Amino acid sequence: MTAITQTLARYIVNSQPTDIPAEVEREARRCLMHWLGCSIGGSRETSVDVALAAVQELAGKGVASILGRNEKLDIGHAAFVNGVSADVLSFSDTHPATLIHAGGVIGSAALAIAERVPASGRDFLHALIIGFETACRVGLAIYPWHYNRGWHITGTAGIFGAAAAVGKLLRLDEQQMVYALGIAATQSAGLREMFGSMCKNLHIGRAAQNGLASALFASKGFTSSTQSLEAPRGFANVLGEKPNLDAITHNLGKTFEILHNTYKPYPCGVVIHPIIEGCVNLAVEHNLSAENIRGVALRCNPYVIELCGKAKPAGTLEAKLSVYHSAAAAIVAREITDLEYRPDFISRADVLALRGKVVVTPDATIREDETEVSVEMNSGERYTTHIEHVIGSTERPMSDADMEQKFRGLTGPVLPASQIDQLLDSCRNVSALPDVALLARLATTH
Amino acid sequence: MTAITQTLARYIVNSQPTDIPAEVEREARRCLMHWLGCSIGGSRETSVDVALAAVQELAGKGVASILGRNEKLDIGHAAFVNGVSADVLSFSDTHPATLIHAGGVIGSAALAIAERVPASGRDFLHALIIGFETACRVGLAIYPWHYNRGWHITGTAGIFGAAAAVGKLLRLDEQQMVYALGIAATQSAGLREMFGSMCKNLHIGRAAQNGLASALFASKGFTSSTQSLEAPRGFANVLGEKPNLDAITHNLGKTFEILHNTYKPYPCGVVIHPIIEGCVNLAVEHNLSAENIRGVALRCNPYVIELCGKAKPAGTLEAKLSVYHSAAAAIVAREITDLEYRPDFISRADVLALRGKVVVTPDATIREDETEVSVEMNSGERYTTHIEHVIGSTERPMSDADMEQKFRGLTGPVLPASQIDQLLDSCRNVSALPDVALLARLATTH
Repeated sequence: MTAITQTLARYIVNSQPTDIPAEVEREARRCLMHWLGCSIGGSRETSVDVALAAVQELAGKGVASILGRNEKLDIGHAAFVNGVSADVLSFSDTHPATLIHAGGVIGSAALAIAERVPASGRDFLHALIIGFETACRVGLAIYPWHYNRGWHITGTAGIFGAAAAVGKLLRLDEQQMVYALGIAATQSAGLREMFGSMCKNLHIGRAAQNGLASALFASKGFTSSTQSLEAPRGFANVLGEKPNLDAITHNLGKTFEILHNTYKPYPCGVVIHPIIEGCVNLAVEHNLSAENIRGVALRCNPYVIELCGKAKPAGTLEAKLSVYHSAAAAIVAREITDLEYRPDFISRADVLALRGKVVVTPDATIREDETEVSVEMNSGERYTTHIEHVIGSTERPMSDADMEQKFRGLTGPVLPASQIDQLLDSCRNVSALPDVALLARLATTH
Repeated sequence: MTAITQTLARYIVNSQPTDIPAEVEREARRCLMHWLGCSIGGSRETSVDVALAAVQELAGKGVASILGRNEKLDIGHAAFVNGVSADVLSFSDTHPATLIHAGGVIGSAALAIAERVPASGRDFLHALIIGFETACRVGLAIYPWHYNRGWHITGTAGIFGAAAAVGKLLRLDEQQMVYALGIAATQSAGLREMFGSMCKNLHIGRAAQNGLASALFASKGFTSSTQSLEAPRGFANVLGEKPNLDAITHNLGKTFEILHNTYKPYPCGVVIHPIIEGCVNLAVEHNLSAENIRGVALRCNPYVIELCGKAKPAGTLEAKLSVYHSAAAAIVAREITDLEYRPDFISRADVLALRGKVVVTPDATIREDETEVSVEMNSGERYTTHIEHVIGSTERPMSDADMEQKFRGLTGPVLPASQIDQLLDSCRNVSALPDVALLARLATTH
């Protein structure tokens, strides 16, 4: 048993901004901007209001910002609420090899601590990259068994990334970083059973908050096992089965998982995306009217049914995990934005009627970013399309212009236009910021 | 799949103090007094100091008491720190069928919320009983696979008990209680790999703090799965293997797990206790001198090596999980109190020498509360003893007088004698207290 935890901790502590390739920094800036957009866009949702109300009598002195709002909380609870808002629209970034949505967890933790330490933009971006690498490598060691067992990997692996990023900004030494990872390991939690409820959002918030606390505790002398990842009864063996521990340390510092990060074009479960693109394309191309449709047949990866199989979604959170609603909505609206997941749209008679005509055929030969959509009309005509790689996938990444459009769409209803421009500029030039707390100021209302 | 979570929630919500048999209330009073003693006695340990320092910039307005001290914190962090101090001496109560140390988790959460709601002593005792029942029944559903896999069951199952007790004091309705259990389920965490480090104590603190938060969140409208315990990817199937879900609901309200609760005579891993009693007995009876001993042979349950097999413990926390140190110390000191786990005693030359002569033979035919100790002298003489049931086991419970002696030993160095008498009286008469916050005032320094 090699010293996996210690090797990882040593890398985290020793890595320097100058070790990071330019293309990695570029993707980290996209990830940063994207996360801020998601949290600002999600900041007025019910989960966030309830979370804010719930922590009111737990929270400490307000020193850290709540994105998209004007409240302030202690750094732990700020990380929590910003993690909730990052996830609430189901619009997050995705690391395809693990299905981890890392940006919101790591960003929320890192920004909260950066409002205290303080941190330069260069160090902050570096901490995000290191945190992202840590979360995804831990995830790779236990995926897919871990995810299939029922763990929400964004929470369970994300907490390590939050601990690493915050530990980096707190300048922990190697021994303290070993403990920070250990304290994170033993707080790792989150069940997929919660998908469709506010607890899905809670996982992201708690991973950020508890990851931050792990690094903070280690900085004050709190101790853990020194082999929390690899021990026979450590994290990977308890929450995984025959884990691939080598994935945590192999080529550390040479390859960067953030280069594989993807961004969602639609605010819903990522495995539904090819279907939405196919449905929108057919609806536009053939000027489809829902009332003329006899049936919609989808051939897709089995994860679609497993993760997003809610046939009769009860509200927004469930609708975002419903392939049936999403396909019907995509045809009716000919686009998918957040509006198509609002209660009034979900309950529209034409959407409900079409939803009942959607038939899904899982097919293990179809990749997660692929689908075949076939629409049969009452007239007997049939239109089909094949999405080889959906927009937003690794093979068809969102362009910088796509990302900016998404960012403006998310932030427009919340922040003044001039502030949005300033925030976009600051994200693009984050490495030149003397104090990254500027991002927090630009991302909040006043 | 029956509605396990809902059935449990309904029981928690509907149970009344008048439904509780007198013998159950008696044991709950013993459990309460015992937990307060452990936390007060542990309140000056390093883990507690570090925990207090670490939460300083996270904690909210000081409204809840820290046992044995004069600080105040928000109710969540007070539950956390009191949970840490409950565990730090490894002197907790034990539910033998699950190895859950429930008192500290549930007590810490319930007392913190009781300083806010407020609660009568009668309702408080009732909440403790309901919380205890909840934690132990959840534990029974997944034990022993769960524990053997590497989960620290006091943390993972304890959080349900904390949520139930706090939810009861917050007077949640049935739907809210379902959510409180769900929010707890998805925060359940804690690895046995952490034994011997401060994270073992953290598990108890976090279970109390996060269990409290679960109930508080549910009271504010936060939602979860409604089948968090029994769903195919719910708590019991993800953290257990072929769980016995029936254990959660069978005879609910008719049997009470707290009647099986036991209390430790020695401040260390419970499976070492028979060995300590045997070693002390032999040392006293035969006036043994360590330097005349050739070897100490122990035949005992295999859990002794698995849980407490540290041959060369590095400090207090590890020594409490070392059968080798504990056996040697018991013979040298002829008693085991907290003093025999202090660094100066651990490193004594005679203790170190004798420790190296201890040989442990695991034997699956020996119960956990049983042992055979055999001491061979340099002279060739051999003394043996068989402990059938150790003091503190279900079969040989600590008497009320034993419990009071333990309480006075723990609290004596921390509180004035008159205050200890008042606190003991208030525990004995807790059901008559109009406001249980009195317990918190009597258990703190001023």
